[in-house]
Amino acid sequence: MAGRKIIFHPEEKTIFADEANTVLEASQKAGVSIEATCGGRGTCGKCRVSILHGQREPLTKVEENFLSAQDVEKGIALACQCRGYGDLEILVPEKENGSSRKVILETKTVPLDTDVKKEYLELEKPHIHDFRPDEKRLIDALKGKQINSLQLDVLSSIPSFLRENDFRVTAVLAGSELLAVEAGDTRNKIYGVAFDIGTTTVVGYLLDLCQGLVLGAASRTNKQSSYGADVISRIQFSDEQVNGLKCLQENVMDVANEIIQELAQQNGIDTETVYQVSVVGNTVMSHLFLGLSPAALGKSPFIQVFSSMKVIPAKNLGLKVNYHAKVIVLPNIAGYVGSDTVAALLAVGIDKNTGPAMMIDLGTNGEIALTCEGKLYTCSTAAGPAFEGAHIYQGMRATEGAIEKVRIDKTVNISVIGNAVPSGICGSGLIDGISELVKSGIINKNGRMLPQKDLDGKIPEELWHRLRMRDSGQEFVLHYSSTKQEDVVITQRDVRELQMAKAAVRAGAEILLKEAGIEAKDLNTVKLAGAFGSFVRKESILSIGLLPRVDGQIVYPVGNAAGEGAILALASEEKRQHAEYLARKATHVELSLRPDFHTAFRDACAFV
Amino acid sequence: MAGRKIIFHPEEKTIFADEANTVLEASQKAGVSIEATCGGRGTCGKCRVSILHGQREPLTKVEENFLSAQDVEKGIALACQCRGYGDLEILVPEKENGSSRKVILETKTVPLDTDVKKEYLELEKPHIHDFRPDEKRLIDALKGKQINSLQLDVLSSIPSFLRENDFRVTAVLAGSELLAVEAGDTRNKIYGVAFDIGTTTVVGYLLDLCQGLVLGAASRTNKQSSYGADVISRIQFSDEQVNGLKCLQENVMDVANEIIQELAQQNGIDTETVYQVSVVGNTVMSHLFLGLSPAALGKSPFIQVFSSMKVIPAKNLGLKVNYHAKVIVLPNIAGYVGSDTVAALLAVGIDKNTGPAMMIDLGTNGEIALTCEGKLYTCSTAAGPAFEGAHIYQGMRATEGAIEKVRIDKTVNISVIGNAVPSGICGSGLIDGISELVKSGIINKNGRMLPQKDLDGKIPEELWHRLRMRDSGQEFVLHYSSTKQEDVVITQRDVRELQMAKAAVRAGAEILLKEAGIEAKDLNTVKLAGAFGSFVRKESILSIGLLPRVDGQIVYPVGNAAGEGAILALASEEKRQHAEYLARKATHVELSLRPDFHTAFRDACAFV
Repeated sequence: MAGRKIIFHPEEKTIFADEANTVLEASQKAGVSIEATCGGRGTCGKCRVSILHGQREPLTKVEENFLSAQDVEKGIALACQCRGYGDLEILVPEKENGSSRKVILETKTVPLDTDVKKEYLELEKPHIHDFRPDEKRLIDALKGKQINSLQLDVLSSIPSFLRENDFRVTAVLAGSELLAVEAGDTRNKIYGVAFDIGTTTVVGYLLDLCQGLVLGAASRTNKQSSYGADVISRIQFSDEQVNGLKCLQENVMDVANEIIQELAQQNGIDTETVYQVSVVGNTVMSHLFLGLSPAALGKSPFIQVFSSMKVIPAKNLGLKVNYHAKVIVLPNIAGYVGSDTVAALLAVGIDKNTGPAMMIDLGTNGEIALTCEGKLYTCSTAAGPAFEGAHIYQGMRATEGAIEKVRIDKTVNISVIGNAVPSGICGSGLIDGISELVKSGIINKNGRMLPQKDLDGKIPEELWHRLRMRDSGQEFVLHYSSTKQEDVVITQRDVRELQMAKAAVRAGAEILLKEAGIEAKDLNTVKLAGAFGSFVRKESILSIGLLPRVDGQIVYPVGNAAGEGAILALASEEKRQHAEYLARKATHVELSLRPDFHTAFRDACAFV
Repeated sequence: MAGRKIIFHPEEKTIFADEANTVLEASQKAGVSIEATCGGRGTCGKCRVSILHGQREPLTKVEENFLSAQDVEKGIALACQCRGYGDLEILVPEKENGSSRKVILETKTVPLDTDVKKEYLELEKPHIHDFRPDEKRLIDALKGKQINSLQLDVLSSIPSFLRENDFRVTAVLAGSELLAVEAGDTRNKIYGVAFDIGTTTVVGYLLDLCQGLVLGAASRTNKQSSYGADVISRIQFSDEQVNGLKCLQENVMDVANEIIQELAQQNGIDTETVYQVSVVGNTVMSHLFLGLSPAALGKSPFIQVFSSMKVIPAKNLGLKVNYHAKVIVLPNIAGYVGSDTVAALLAVGIDKNTGPAMMIDLGTNGEIALTCEGKLYTCSTAAGPAFEGAHIYQGMRATEGAIEKVRIDKTVNISVIGNAVPSGICGSGLIDGISELVKSGIINKNGRMLPQKDLDGKIPEELWHRLRMRDSGQEFVLHYSSTKQEDVVITQRDVRELQMAKAAVRAGAEILLKEAGIEAKDLNTVKLAGAFGSFVRKESILSIGLLPRVDGQIVYPVGNAAGEGAILALASEEKRQHAEYLARKATHVELSLRPDFHTAFRDACAFV
């Protein structure tokens, strides 16, 4: 093998990389996952690794920017920048534990209306007066199921299978198709997995499709993350790199297969008995899952390859469930309103509401839907990932060590996930903190964090001392570090990031109200979908003006509605049809084409 | 590489074989085709090869039986018996030229009713007010075609394809499925290939599916022949050998692909424009073509895996036409009445006849069908391959050098295929010869060839001298060799073989008449299907009593009706449905279960 050897710890994976390869590129070849939010462009500084052995090429400008002298002394490097002079041994820091905030799932039993059924058959054996072909013998025994013909790959397995099992078998049917034949009587074993494929996290739910029970959930980081944190970098990678699309598809399929494996082990089932899978995700995730190029989603007018519901045999996708299982990918609405939104709409029963209802899914993009008088409007706002802690100075995902709640009276009271020493701030903490800073007068209506001189005697002294000016601007200390770690702060720039994000969502919501010809006060209910919506304090969301002016009593967090919708669709043909109905019924409002969006956005920036 | 090297000439193929391998086994691994009628069981003596270099193990008993001292001196060996002590160089004799009797094909134009259609589209390009997904854009443009959804593999190709071709493409449709998208306007290019897969020979016909024209035909020896000449040895090979089924499927697929390639080259078309394929064959050939085990066809009660019509994507079979092409395998009727018979019934329009009609397809098995008062009866007789020249002392296929016609008056007049020096006798020559010998009194009604002493002065002297007694029994010389080759003779044993074959067919026909409750004289027409039926003299067939007692005027040879049926089914959905209708309508009479068959068979043995 040519090239330089790189060993990745703690996974102990070795790869021979080309000398032109960065450590990040080598890690991707080796299948080692290093967080690289910007996809290796040198703009996020997240791909920190430690060099244990070996000599590296000199620091790049990018590294000089992101690494402290202390970092460099310790052998910290940015994987996307660093190349070795010879062999290297690299320590990849352990991932943040993505499961410290448990997957929220209220549903335990689901209405069953599945077309995957089993039937136990004791077939008549062939004899000289009954020389029906194997296929016909099976079809006759399944009379009333309207099966006309078997697929070739099923057909090829049955002659020996029937004879080895003395013609006693269980037929697995999906509608009028015979999916497979199993030995003996296995009628009580039909399972399904529902997937919510997020840009950052993939969640899978295991269902017992005989009883309509949710048996468990498992989640993993989407391995595509090492090729970029957001959908835009994934689109670029798939479009610009040789085999980029294939690589991203394989990455998400790997994660899905790991989740299936974990769910099967936890629940003591055989993955071969998983006969149906449902998948929801944003449009880019759906495209990548199916191996379809998202390139045209990367630029206006944001064209999808498909938007209708897809049913694909698992064998065509490499999903390690039963070879003949059906994988149902729910429909999308528009370029940036994907099947995750459709699933969420399904789960919250958006169209079952009496009176106008709004649903807001707060994630990287804020998808907003509004029903009113039998119509359904949707839009997508480029809210940016501020709600997920990204692009925030000390932002982090909602995992151990993240400040998730903030109360300010005479001093600052914080809640930290896992009751750990705070190491950063997540989306809900940021909104809480900024909301409290606005209330206390430290941030004004325009979002300006006032300097100490303007607040002399106007706020409690303890708070006053927390304000400080740095080269990068004004900041407020939420938590003083007792170790050598940095204090956790909210910066002026963080406030601006949140302002942009909340203004985008608020403006989108206002445009939809306008489109429907109603006002905020006419709304009957507002559902906040997404894990974030469940953890953030309603009052803070209302007080920063993220939502149109509605009474807090009509605002409901609905948890991971996309996942719930995926579960419902997995268990019920009727729900799937309803999902397709909702997707096709929706009128998508493309905000970038609305001349009034700019005004609405500007109006929504203020903290009023 | 371990093992012994064997070089096969004239193909110059080299293989390293295990020392336990016979030359035949090595040839199969090397992909060199050696005729082995018995499949290597040492019972046919057909697999003669010459050893050019190297030393072989001693002659086996089987070889001593089949080879003359002269043969051995020349280095002739039986491939199925011979093993080398070390490396060997082997000369494989050139195959008999299978195309000296041209494929008979009267059809030139066929009625078109195909669901494969093309439509040229100039799609609207996406813009900010038209952000329909690529899929929907295509489906909308094909309005009225009732296409709901595209297959994933089509979908994956279209985003870049549409853009590279400026959204001007030709859609290829099969019913309500979009098969593919081609660049530019290719509306006038849709081709199809119809296959008649025989146990011995595979014939393919190229059709222009825009004009309904048969463009050409090509035929090849079925490469499966090196694993046995008849269906029984193929069943055994597929069932008993590791990967035997896969091997036989690959062999027939190779032949089919060679034929497709030849047809495409001859007619200057691109194999990518072949979008439909039809296939007919006996049940074992159909099963092997689809990779389905024919094991249960090998023993009573002769169970097929399938009998209904199959439509399989070409990609699943490895057929080298358009990846998305549909391969239509016509339905079978019963264990030994396959889709070739169904196709022949379709071609002769068996059910369009006024009055009772019979069709007899004379091949290795004689399939017989009878329609009468809206009913259709079929049976299959184990006629054996005598009509194809097999199991006959000097029998050969109907190729150059075969005596194909015989007239006996004061002497013997023969016609030889290709006007060559006679080297054997084919089926039509055998029937002619025996019919003439019966007429001249040399063979009596019971099929006994009389010795010279019984015929003293009773037949012309020239004929009398042609009778001679050998150790193996009585024989009659058709042709005296002027070289060192053997004379061409008909032996007593040949007569017995033919008697068995013709009695089987005759008895089957009589049973069907009985089943329908009619007599031979009630028949309105008798169609003789198969190439053999076209070359044999009607009078000879009638005089040996192969057919029920009917007037010669109602007997019609109909040529390769199976091939014609395959062509009709390729070109027309209505014909395919009619084929399915005929197959399902047929009442199959299993002769082995008829107590009256034995009597009918005995009665049919005599030459009356």
